[in-house]
Amino acid sequence: MPIQQRSEETRARLLQAAVECFAQHGYDGTGVAEICEHAGVSKGAFYHHFPTKQAVFLALLQSWLGGLDEQMAVLRSAAPTVPEALRQTALIVPHILQASTGQMPIYFEFVAKASREPDTWRATLEPYHRYHELFTHMIAAGIAEGSLRPVDPAAAAHAILSFAVGLVLQGVLDPHGADWALVAQDSMEILLKGLQVP
Amino acid sequence: MPIQQRSEETRARLLQAAVECFAQHGYDGTGVAEICEHAGVSKGAFYHHFPTKQAVFLALLQSWLGGLDEQMAVLRSAAPTVPEALRQTALIVPHILQASTGQMPIYFEFVAKASREPDTWRATLEPYHRYHELFTHMIAAGIAEGSLRPVDPAAAAHAILSFAVGLVLQGVLDPHGADWALVAQDSMEILLKGLQVP
Repeated sequence: MPIQQRSEETRARLLQAAVECFAQHGYDGTGVAEICEHAGVSKGAFYHHFPTKQAVFLALLQSWLGGLDEQMAVLRSAAPTVPEALRQTALIVPHILQASTGQMPIYFEFVAKASREPDTWRATLEPYHRYHELFTHMIAAGIAEGSLRPVDPAAAAHAILSFAVGLVLQGVLDPHGADWALVAQDSMEILLKGLQVP
Repeated sequence: MPIQQRSEETRARLLQAAVECFAQHGYDGTGVAEICEHAGVSKGAFYHHFPTKQAVFLALLQSWLGGLDEQMAVLRSAAPTVPEALRQTALIVPHILQASTGQMPIYFEFVAKASREPDTWRATLEPYHRYHELFTHMIAAGIAEGSLRPVDPAAAAHAILSFAVGLVLQGVLDPHGADWALVAQDSMEILLKGLQVP
């Protein structure tokens, strides 16, 4: 097997082992040694791929968000207008919630620790900034195409992102507290009513 | 000193000691023994007031939210209309963020642990349900007074609460990421544009 391929396989095995260890023992309860043992990989090989356990978690998060980004890009390019793209985006919420089942305590343990480490923290916040930028571009495009009122795109993007973050957080904390798929659609209609040209 | 008064003082001392211990060593890093020592109170007295460390945290959260509830009730009764009350409520956001400074890792550590204990979990979710109910009543009152469109009050309340939760979460995670006071006001205007009778 070529070295490059073997190295990628080792990385993938470490990530998969980390998912399983985190699920079983929590983020705090899992150490690098345990991930290595579970993956059948040496500590040397681990540190070749990841400087820390935090880096493993961030890689998992990025790979998961990468899938979400792809879905959003497909919806965006398929939708005839920005309001329609936003409606379609709201339909992803149940998938996000399903994929997050059981992950919440792990994310929270990670965030609690990460907030005390400036570099990890910057990486933790990066997705929020990226989605804010993405929604800002969408709103600006909606104004340009004449479907949205001439609002401040960055401000409207904060409203959409806050709504999405709050919805996902509540949905993950309290899966049976509401029909979150319906809440996502209804809330998006209220936001669009506030944003669209009448 | 009357027994009743002494008992209340002990409880207050335990709560204050818990705040200081959590701030210094985190939620996970603080034990009941440490809270007792810091408060100068026996373990017997602790368990007279609180069954667990989780109960102490929930009491702190409830006392803090009690202050918020009072502020909201005052604003609601002073505002001439529901849209005006919602605008005023958005102005509380910077105060919530200021009061939350440094508390975020503690809340996240608590939530990560609490999610594994059904009784604690129900108590953790209670504020979300309560604020949803409060906003549902406000929206219904707005429809009744003729200022809001005849939306589904529960659905609109979910939109407002999601937006508030997402905003506070981002503001706490990333205090310098935006002017959150302004974001709260701008986002509320967009929501109101979607909710108000034109």
